[in-house]
Amino acid sequence: MLGTLIELQRLKRLERTGWSLRGLPSGTESVAAHSFGVGVTAMMLADEVKARGLAVDCERVLRMALLHDWAETRVGDMPRTATGYFGPDARKNAETLAFADIVNGLSSGDSEYKALYEDYEQRVSLEARLVKAADVVDLLVQAYALERSGAKGLDEFWEVVNQPDFQLPQIAEQVVNELLRLLLDARREIE
Amino acid sequence: MLGTLIELQRLKRLERTGWSLRGLPSGTESVAAHSFGVGVTAMMLADEVKARGLAVDCERVLRMALLHDWAETRVGDMPRTATGYFGPDARKNAETLAFADIVNGLSSGDSEYKALYEDYEQRVSLEARLVKAADVVDLLVQAYALERSGAKGLDEFWEVVNQPDFQLPQIAEQVVNELLRLLLDARREIE
Amino acid sequence: MLGTLIELQRLKRLERTGWSLRGLPSGTESVAAHSFGVGVTAMMLADEVKARGLAVDCERVLRMALLHDWAETRVGDMPRTATGYFGPDARKNAETLAFADIVNGLSSGDSEYKALYEDYEQRVSLEARLVKAADVVDLLVQAYALERSGAKGLDEFWEVVNQPDFQLPQIAEQVVNELLRLLLDARREIE
Amino acid sequence: MLGTLIELQRLKRLERTGWSLRGLPSGTESVAAHSFGVGVTAMMLADEVKARGLAVDCERVLRMALLHDWAETRVGDMPRTATGYFGPDARKNAETLAFADIVNGLSSGDSEYKALYEDYEQRVSLEARLVKAADVVDLLVQAYALERSGAKGLDEFWEVVNQPDFQLPQIAEQVVNELLRLLLDARREIE
Amino acid sequence: MLGTLIELQRLKRLERTGWSLRGLPSGTESVAAHSFGVGVTAMMLADEVKARGLAVDCERVLRMALLHDWAETRVGDMPRTATGYFGPDARKNAETLAFADIVNGLSSGDSEYKALYEDYEQRVSLEARLVKAADVVDLLVQAYALERSGAKGLDEFWEVVNQPDFQLPQIAEQVVNELLRLLLDARREIE
Amino acid sequence: MLGTLIELQRLKRLERTGWSLRGLPSGTESVAAHSFGVGVTAMMLADEVKARGLAVDCERVLRMALLHDWAETRVGDMPRTATGYFGPDARKNAETLAFADIVNGLSSGDSEYKALYEDYEQRVSLEARLVKAADVVDLLVQAYALERSGAKGLDEFWEVVNQPDFQLPQIAEQVVNELLRLLLDARREIE
Repeated sequence: MLGTLIELQRLKRLERTGWSLRGLPSGTESVAAHSFGVGVTAMMLADEVKARGLAVDCERVLRMALLHDWAETRVGDMPRTATGYFGPDARKNAETLAFADIVNGLSSGDSEYKALYEDYEQRVSLEARLVKAADVVDLLVQAYALERSGAKGLDEFWEVVNQPDFQLPQIAEQVVNELLRLLLDARREIE
Repeated sequence: MLGTLIELQRLKRLERTGWSLRGLPSGTESVAAHSFGVGVTAMMLADEVKARGLAVDCERVLRMALLHDWAETRVGDMPRTATGYFGPDARKNAETLAFADIVNGLSSGDSEYKALYEDYEQRVSLEARLVKAADVVDLLVQAYALERSGAKGLDEFWEVVNQPDFQLPQIAEQVVNELLRLLLDARREIE
Repeated sequence: MLGTLIELQRLKRLERTGWSLRGLPSGTESVAAHSFGVGVTAMMLADEVKARGLAVDCERVLRMALLHDWAETRVGDMPRTATGYFGPDARKNAETLAFADIVNGLSSGDSEYKALYEDYEQRVSLEARLVKAADVVDLLVQAYALERSGAKGLDEFWEVVNQPDFQLPQIAEQVVNELLRLLLDARREIE
Repeated sequence: MLGTLIELQRLKRLERTGWSLRGLPSGTESVAAHSFGVGVTAMMLADEVKARGLAVDCERVLRMALLHDWAETRVGDMPRTATGYFGPDARKNAETLAFADIVNGLSSGDSEYKALYEDYEQRVSLEARLVKAADVVDLLVQAYALERSGAKGLDEFWEVVNQPDFQLPQIAEQVVNELLRLLLDARREIE
Repeated sequence: MLGTLIELQRLKRLERTGWSLRGLPSGTESVAAHSFGVGVTAMMLADEVKARGLAVDCERVLRMALLHDWAETRVGDMPRTATGYFGPDARKNAETLAFADIVNGLSSGDSEYKALYEDYEQRVSLEARLVKAADVVDLLVQAYALERSGAKGLDEFWEVVNQPDFQLPQIAEQVVNELLRLLLDARREIE
Repeated sequence: MLGTLIELQRLKRLERTGWSLRGLPSGTESVAAHSFGVGVTAMMLADEVKARGLAVDCERVLRMALLHDWAETRVGDMPRTATGYFGPDARKNAETLAFADIVNGLSSGDSEYKALYEDYEQRVSLEARLVKAADVVDLLVQAYALERSGAKGLDEFWEVVNQPDFQLPQIAEQVVNELLRLLLDARREIE
C-alpha cells in the first residue's frame, strides 16, 4: 500500500495541462486538487439525485471519483488535443495498463479498483456517468472561478455545455442541467 | 449546490501552512490536494481493515475524508501552533460554525454533512478515527516525498509516529502501524 | 535575537490568505512584503501629517508598522471571515500570546515591543491609528495594482473605503481621505 | 506565421513533467527553456566536433534543436513511463501528426521544418544524433544544477550515462563522452 | 564547455523583469524561454525573408538569437528604465565584458561567439537587425498571449509598434511589418 | 504620494536575483520581503546597541532600512557580479538618480528621503553602517533558513562572515559579531 500512496503523491504537484497551455500561472490546479473537486461534486450530485428518488450506489461513486485520474502519475495529464492525435482507444489502453501497474502492489482492493476503473472508462453504470458529469462540472466551476478572478481565453472549455451528453437517466440529467444552467447564469454576470 | 461548489474551489489554491512556515516553496501542497490524499489513504486503509475482518462503513469513511477540511475556506489552514494559542475548543467551535454556514445553502445533504463533520470532530466512530489516521498518514507520506526530493527541517512532523494515539481497534491499529513502520524504514533509506 | 530573526523569516514565505482565497496565484504577496508596504505607507502618512502641523512620534509609527504582523509566524494569516467565527477577542488574545512568546527570547527590547503591540491592538494612540490606516491603504494599493494587471473579483476589499473609521484627528483624517480619493479615481480609470 | 508563433508561446509555460513528478517545485524548467538549453548545447557540441575535423551542418543542428519539441504544444510533455504504455511508435506517430498541423499554416518553411523533424525522429543524420546527445546533456546539466542547489531523488536520470548510445562517429562520441565524464566528476563533488 | 553550460542553466530560472515589475506572477517567462522564442521567431522571419529573395545567413541568425542574452547570467535582466539611468553605453560595456568572461573558458568557438555578440550589439549586419526584430516580435507575441489570458497594464510594451525602427532592407521590413500588423489585429479582437 | 506607493508595490513581486541565479524556486524572497527583514534586524540591532550604552538615532535607522532598496523598482535587483562589470560608482550613480525620480513626486519628505539615501550609500553615519550590517545579517539569516530546509550551493554568501567590515564602533561591532557567531554555530548544526 505504501508504494501506491507514495506514487499518488505525485498528483499533488502535477499541473492540469489545460490551464498551463492557456497561459495560466503554475499552481492554478493540480490533478490531485481536481480529483478532490470531482469527489465533492460527485458526492453532492449523487445525494441530490438520490433525494429525488433514483437509486445510486454512493460508495461506488466516491471510489470512482477518487481513483479516476491515478493513471496520470505514469502517463501525465494529456491535453485534449493529444487524445485526438493518439486516438481515444490508444489513450484508454495506455491508461488502463498504467492503472493496473499502480494498483498491482496492493495486498487488497486491487481487483476492485481495476473493476471500478474499467467501469469508469466504459461509462456503463449510472455511477460512472455521474462521475463523468462531476468531472465536467468541476472543470467548469474551476473555469468560472478563474474567470471571476480575471482569467480570459477559456471559451473552448464552455462549448461542452451546449450539448452535454452524459447519457444519464432523466432525473439525474435534470440535476446536472440545472446546475450547469445556474453556472452559465453566474458566468454571464461576471462580464 | 453551486454556491458551495464555487466556495470549495478555494481549497485548490490554499497552501498548507505547515509547509510554507518551514520554507518550502509555494505550490508544495494545497488543502484540496491533501484532502484527495486523505481520501485515497482512508479508502485503502478501510479496505485493508475490512479484508482483515473488521466491519467498516466505507462510504462513511470516504464522505468524511472528502469533507473534513471544508471549514478552511472560511477559517484558513491554521498552523498547529495556532491551536495552542486559541485552545482546541475555540478552534473546533469556529470550524463547526464555518462548516455549517458552508453547507447551509444545500438543498439536500446538509444535515448529513453536518453529522459527518460532527462525528469526525468528536472522533467517536471507528470511521472517524480511521479518517484521522489517514490524515496523519497522508501528512507523513507527503513529508517523506518532500524529504526524498531534498527537503529538510521536517523532523517535528515525524514526532507523532513515536506514540500514535488513534484509539483504533486492534486490527485497524495493526494496519496503520505496519504502514507507519514501513514508512519509517523508507525514510531511513533516504539519509 | 537570532531565534527571533530566524522565526520571522517565515513571514517572507507566508502568503496573504486573502489573495489565495480569491484565486490569485501564489507569490502574489507575502506577509513580510505587506509589512514592508505598511511601513512605507505609515512613514509617508506620518511625514505628511507632521508637515501639516500635527505632532507624531514617527519612530513609534515605524516600529509598530514593522512588528504588527509578527504573531502570524505562529497563528498564520487568518482570513477576515475567521475572525468572525472566532470572535475578535479570541483572535486578539491568541495573537497577543503568540507575540509575547516570539519576543520573549530577546535580551533587550522585548517589553518595549510588547507595549507597542498592545498599543497597536488597542488603537489608543494616534500612532497606532495611523499604522492601522496604513495597513488598509497598503491593502488597497495592492488591490489596485492587482486589478490594473488584470485581477478581478476584489470588490469586497474596497467596501471599507465607503465608511473608513480610523478615528484619526482631523488633519490626519484629511491626509488619509485625500489618498483614498485619489486611489478610487485611479481605480475608476482602469475599467 | 503568427498563428504558429502564438501557439509556440505555450511552451514557455509548459512544465517539464519529469521534474514535477519527482516533487520539484513548479517553475523548475519549462519546455521552452529546455529547448533553449538544447540549442546552446548542440551549438557548442557541433562547434567542438567541427574544430576536431568532422564536417557538421551547424545550421541544420540549430534548426533541429529549436524545433524538436514543438509537438508538445498539442501532445504535452509526456513522461518517459508514458512512452512505455503507448509504445514508442504510437508516440512518434502522434507527435509527427501534431508537428505537421503546427507548421501547416506557415507560408514558407513548413516542408523544410517537417523534413527536419522527420530526420530528428529517425536519428539518421549526424546532425540529428548530435541534437539527441544535446537533449540528454542538457537534461543532465539541469539535473546537476538542481542537485547542486539541494534536489535529491534524481538518480534514475543519470542511468543513461552508464551506457550512452548516441550512435555518433568516434570524434563526436569522444566530445560527448568527455563532457559527460566531467559532469559526473562535478556531480561527485557535490555529495 | 561544461562550466559555460552550467552557468547558462541560470537563465532557465531568471524571470524576465519586465513582467515581474508589472505584477505578473512569477513563472511568466524565463530569460531562457524568451531566448527560445527569439530563436524560433528569427528562424521563421529569416526563412520568409529568404523566400522573398533576400540573401540571409540563417546560421548566423540562429547563433545570434541563441546567445544574445547570455550576459544576463552575470548582469541580470535589467528593466528598460535601468538602461536610462546607466546610459546605454555603460550597459553595453558591462554586458560585453560579462559575455567575454562567460565564453572565455570554451576551448573552441569563444572568439566566434564574441564576434557574433559584438555584431548583435552594434546591429550592423542584416542578421543582427533581424534578430533584434525577432526580439521585439517575441516580446509582443508574449504580451499578446498574456493579454489574451487576462493580463492588463501592458500598453507601454506596444508603443514600439507605432514607429518600429529596425533599419531593415525593404523586403525584410515588409515581412516584419506584416507580422506586426496581424498581431495588432489579433490584439484588437481580444478587447 | 499615491504614485510612489503604487510604484513601490513592484518590490513585492521582484525576486531577489541572488536566489534565482542559484536555482532556488521563484517566490523564495521578494525585495520587499528582504526590506522588511532588514528593517526588523536593524531595529533589534539598534535597540541592543543602545541598551549597551551607545547613542543611536533609531528613527533614522528604521527610515533608512525601509527605503534603502527603493531604486530597484527602476533599476532591478542587480546581482553582485553586475556591480563588478558596471563598476560600483556607475551603480551608485544610477540608483541615486532612480531614487530621486521615485521620491520627486512627494509633496513632503522627498528631500529628507534623498538625504537618508545619500547617507546610506556613503555609509558615513553610525546609522547607515548599522543598516548595512542588518542588510548582510538578514541575507545570511535567510540563507541559513533556506539551507535548513534543504537548499545547497550557497557557500559564497557566507564568505563575507570571515572578514566583516562594517566599520562600526566597538560596541556595535560586538553586537553584530556575536550574532554572526551564533548564526555560524546554528549553521554548523544543520550539516
